[in-house]
Amino acid sequence: MISLLQQEIESQPEVIARLLERETHHIQQIVAQLPPFDYALIAARGSSDHAATYAKYAWTTLAGYPVALAAPSLLTMYQARIRMAGALVIGISQSGQSPDIIAVLEEGKRQGRPTLAITNDGSSPLAAVADHVIELHAGPEKSVAATKTYTAQLAVMALFAAALSNDPRHMEETQQLPTALEATLRLSTPIMQAVERYRYMDRCITIGRGYNYATSFELALKLKELTYLMATAYSSADFRHGPIATIENGLPVFLVMPLGATFADMLTLAQDLRER
Amino acid sequence: MISLLQQEIESQPEVIARLLERETHHIQQIVAQLPPFDYALIAARGSSDHAATYAKYAWTTLAGYPVALAAPSLLTMYQARIRMAGALVIGISQSGQSPDIIAVLEEGKRQGRPTLAITNDGSSPLAAVADHVIELHAGPEKSVAATKTYTAQLAVMALFAAALSNDPRHMEETQQLPTALEATLRLSTPIMQAVERYRYMDRCITIGRGYNYATSFELALKLKELTYLMATAYSSADFRHGPIATIENGLPVFLVMPLGATFADMLTLAQDLRER
Repeated sequence: MISLLQQEIESQPEVIARLLERETHHIQQIVAQLPPFDYALIAARGSSDHAATYAKYAWTTLAGYPVALAAPSLLTMYQARIRMAGALVIGISQSGQSPDIIAVLEEGKRQGRPTLAITNDGSSPLAAVADHVIELHAGPEKSVAATKTYTAQLAVMALFAAALSNDPRHMEETQQLPTALEATLRLSTPIMQAVERYRYMDRCITIGRGYNYATSFELALKLKELTYLMATAYSSADFRHGPIATIENGLPVFLVMPLGATFADMLTLAQDLRER
Repeated sequence: MISLLQQEIESQPEVIARLLERETHHIQQIVAQLPPFDYALIAARGSSDHAATYAKYAWTTLAGYPVALAAPSLLTMYQARIRMAGALVIGISQSGQSPDIIAVLEEGKRQGRPTLAITNDGSSPLAAVADHVIELHAGPEKSVAATKTYTAQLAVMALFAAALSNDPRHMEETQQLPTALEATLRLSTPIMQAVERYRYMDRCITIGRGYNYATSFELALKLKELTYLMATAYSSADFRHGPIATIENGLPVFLVMPLGATFADMLTLAQDLRER
């Protein structure tokens, strides 16, 4: 019998295919209707905050928009009044129930700024407050660790980046996501064999850069939540600037290094680590 | 004979007193002259990036301005063209030599945005490119780990937050910094006795929130750079959301919990941890 977690992991190609079908055109319409804005101000927590970190790279690289992450505690702890002039105000919450994320969107509305909710529940309080709502269509999330809702949030952020970029090739590429996810999931068996040797590790390091900076943090969070080991995430640049000194013989380091802009940098790091 | 590191740590009250004397009025003048801006866009790396994280809380809480951290790899890896409309563009670099930080300020200038350099070297390339330069006046940093330049960067960010807040009490409070630093350094002897018991730890967790979120990251970085142990930093909110499950008997957790807005939350966490 496969676990709920595994079911949800395996449902990702289907979830993303549904999301693309129902929201691609919707996102293009929203982007066409948005008033001018200078930057995105995103409120989110936990895995959703990692989706916001991904957006920081995707939105800036593809469309030039800076992304500011609004720390929720600015509102909950300090009752800060955030100036939102120039901002597109975005709240990301799987459940749409987080009071601090809702408070950021309410304030955006009060200040006359465009607001966007990204949530798995279109009837949630977060959705009720926003000008525009993107639903994840991921179905109920039953396991404790976010998997399908996290990748759905990333897909929404990629769709917005593509729509904002004015380059139709980017939007075409997003439509390949279900196929890419299926190909990735077919690697499960060799991956399960490869990770056998890590059965008794009690700590590790995860490293990613650029688009995959968020991946290294999400990977570390998943390892902590699901296996209780001590996983620490870095960008390769930050890791070289000090923490690399902590590497001792036998400490596992997992590098997220797909082909692309960051590959050469990650490969150099992998070689440096091998020589230690 | 005391180490260079210890000398630099002990020089902090003097460094900050000099900084306050030479830059308080200068910062007030800069704030009075700045054209309107909607948010701060900060480029920095390593410890300077932690100073930017501190600014995110101080600037928003005291003056309402959101702070976006511009990931340097957006420029170095992806050659992104960042839209800077509405931004006050800030570069923080102790040496003022980092090409990617300089590139962000050059782009700000090209787009007609106000630019600010915060550096320990007023004759550096970073200083040459900025409209306004705040020098740290910390003297040469000889030890590998940033100490006096990091706290000087925090002080600069606090001075700007106070000047932007239009509340003279905040500026008055900043003038107490050297006295507060002296009082803290007088605790060195009891602290040295208290840390004896951690002599053989090989990992630990550091937690701070709000203004001290940056402190937890800087503390972990210092522990890694100077003692090679595996230290992982969290906010208390993120820590509760999953990673708390990784706590086992005997794993040291260091909480940064001064009196103030976040104290009650940190105290609850300390009690939860004690019961585990």
